[in-house]
Amino acid sequence: ANAMLSGLPTTIFTVMSALAVRHDAINLGQGFPDAEGPADMVEAAAGALRDGRNQYPPLAGLPELRTAVARANARFYGIEVDPAREVVVTCGATEAITASLMALVNRGDEVVVFEPLYDTYLPVLEMLGATVRTVRLAPPRWDLPRAELAAAFGPRTKAIVLNTPMNPTGKVFTADELAFIAGLLARYDAYAVCDEVYEHLTFAPARHLPLMTLPGMRERTIRIGSAGKSFSMTGWKVGYVTAPAPLADLVAKAHQLLTFTVAPNLQRAVAVGLEKDTAYFTRLAEGMRASSQHLADGLRQAGFGVLPCDGSYFIIADIAPLGFAGGDVAFCEQMTARAGVAAIPVSAFYDSRGRDIPDRYVRFAFCKQPAVIAEAVARLQTVR
Amino acid sequence: ANAMLSGLPTTIFTVMSALAVRHDAINLGQGFPDAEGPADMVEAAAGALRDGRNQYPPLAGLPELRTAVARANARFYGIEVDPAREVVVTCGATEAITASLMALVNRGDEVVVFEPLYDTYLPVLEMLGATVRTVRLAPPRWDLPRAELAAAFGPRTKAIVLNTPMNPTGKVFTADELAFIAGLLARYDAYAVCDEVYEHLTFAPARHLPLMTLPGMRERTIRIGSAGKSFSMTGWKVGYVTAPAPLADLVAKAHQLLTFTVAPNLQRAVAVGLEKDTAYFTRLAEGMRASSQHLADGLRQAGFGVLPCDGSYFIIADIAPLGFAGGDVAFCEQMTARAGVAAIPVSAFYDSRGRDIPDRYVRFAFCKQPAVIAEAVARLQTVR
Ligand SMILES: CSCCC(=O)C(=O)O
Ligand SMILES: CSCCC(=O)C(=O)O
Repeated sequence: ANAMLSGLPTTIFTVMSALAVRHDAINLGQGFPDAEGPADMVEAAAGALRDGRNQYPPLAGLPELRTAVARANARFYGIEVDPAREVVVTCGATEAITASLMALVNRGDEVVVFEPLYDTYLPVLEMLGATVRTVRLAPPRWDLPRAELAAAFGPRTKAIVLNTPMNPTGKVFTADELAFIAGLLARYDAYAVCDEVYEHLTFAPARHLPLMTLPGMRERTIRIGSAGKSFSMTGWKVGYVTAPAPLADLVAKAHQLLTFTVAPNLQRAVAVGLEKDTAYFTRLAEGMRASSQHLADGLRQAGFGVLPCDGSYFIIADIAPLGFAGGDVAFCEQMTARAGVAAIPVSAFYDSRGRDIPDRYVRFAFCKQPAVIAEAVARLQTVR
Repeated sequence: ANAMLSGLPTTIFTVMSALAVRHDAINLGQGFPDAEGPADMVEAAAGALRDGRNQYPPLAGLPELRTAVARANARFYGIEVDPAREVVVTCGATEAITASLMALVNRGDEVVVFEPLYDTYLPVLEMLGATVRTVRLAPPRWDLPRAELAAAFGPRTKAIVLNTPMNPTGKVFTADELAFIAGLLARYDAYAVCDEVYEHLTFAPARHLPLMTLPGMRERTIRIGSAGKSFSMTGWKVGYVTAPAPLADLVAKAHQLLTFTVAPNLQRAVAVGLEKDTAYFTRLAEGMRASSQHLADGLRQAGFGVLPCDGSYFIIADIAPLGFAGGDVAFCEQMTARAGVAAIPVSAFYDSRGRDIPDRYVRFAFCKQPAVIAEAVARLQTVR
């Protein structure tokens, strides 16, 4: 059996969701909304099943969705995209990330990643034989450590993986930070895989800025979006990649080996979603911000430290002020069992082979109904 | 950019489908039905969108679909399966194959494959760093070359990939051939990845026999099925893996890195399909057999040689009797442009780096409406 997969623990999202069910806890662990996405998209998906288009769509995606992705790039960011050659539809952002790394990396290439990181990046890079250079962002502000980042680049650097708005930190990279990263990419002739699934979930004055919009970055950037996150349909598993044509072509070839295509009815419904007016996206972010503040207040009241959060589904709390010394994993287990609230230990977002992994932080998902947040807040008051 | 993917040609299925569109040809290339699958499954998929289950389902699949897969294993083959630990739902059989190979193979392991082969096997094995041992089946009967197969096994053999009913040949491996393969797997302590997507599409007296049902094979076999093929919904991209628990666990971990989950409404509709009575599956195979015979007759009448076909969506024709000496690729291009019928050159199913690749065979898909087959047959008469 494969050694890397044999050593891979069950993903923390599954572990904590199962624990939440076992203890009938409110699940603020895995990042999924507890309310459905737009009803018109549900109807579009249902209607699209009924008109005889249930066979293989084109490998790179249906023209209507690729056009909608191109239009969204233009509308939100002024990025001009050829839908026929620069967009690939994938089975969620998970496949998009794996396919993008497959497209770029040869064995022995170096890839720079930021820690804390999403839990598929490292095993995928290991499968591909990449040498990983990890750069840690430091709590509580997760600012870019510029000297360290520059030192991580070298002649063998092929790519950086950039997640903004960032899971699990809620950090939104600033224009200044992105410019610094862009400078390194240009200098070292490297590429960026930009996991931007929370692109529409930022809290003003923070604003999402795709690295792709920076001078010189259009040809170096693979930008990944997610219908699951932008339309609160995480189960649909529709993702989309925007990349310069030569890279999009390689991503499509990786996609051919991984899944080949994505269900046409869901693609058509996502095309409907992407044409929604700006008010939809504003309301989505506004609701998320309200929930994040509600949860942040409750966490503070319960005695947690609360780290800044500018976007995403997630906020990080510091358990040190609670005087709990058993570590974030034990804390999350106890909180689930005793207070009835599940969350994710942030140590799960670090390379488990690394040293001095912080163990005082816990990630809470706030992509939940106000009443659920209120009940979670009430339960959390018993945590101390 | 990745060297392997850069060298990978656009899949022949996309190339020929595009050519078919350009020439307004009847597309007997890529294997997809031109009629929709069961209407009750379409309604089940539409209905399942509307009851609030559009967020992440469990990583390994919804319990209702995993149970249905286990029941189908028992009903059709007497295979007893624990749905909670021995079934994984994937984004189509394509993901299932890639995830299964990821689960089994370490770099340097040897994997035995039969040629002609499906076009994702080799690039995936190359990505994983496997050493491929190719064993050619010889036309027109594609019998198992036992001595050669035995010689391909050795101390470093980790797995064999077995596709039965077989694409592109329409061969259904016999009990005797499977017993020979099973003997080698036991002797060399190796595993089988069994791509059985055409399991319900065999023509009596040929019958599909899963390798998993042979003595000693239960623990060595990963069996892959496809809702796309069993229910004529190739666009849905729902596949399922049956494997002993330790292997299923690794397949699930690979799945976590590739796609994470599959759309719940489509999973629920496939669960409905798998509970259909035997008559449904019999009718599906009967219709397919009638189309294959209709097409075979028309091909013979048009001057092609026609190879035996015991199942799948495909039949192979020999162009040598037509006196065409330009090779199968040129033939397919001309046939698409001039006769208005697209098909797939069988040379595309061989390792392009191999020697003496046969170039006189063409694969026709017969998973089409009777009227379409009739029109294709009529057009084919002009081919000579
Ligand atoms: C794909 S499951 C994990 C969901 C998610 O993005 C998260 O919880 O971090
Ligand atoms: C996944 S596209 C190819 C469809 C198919 O199985 C074939 O035509 O061989």
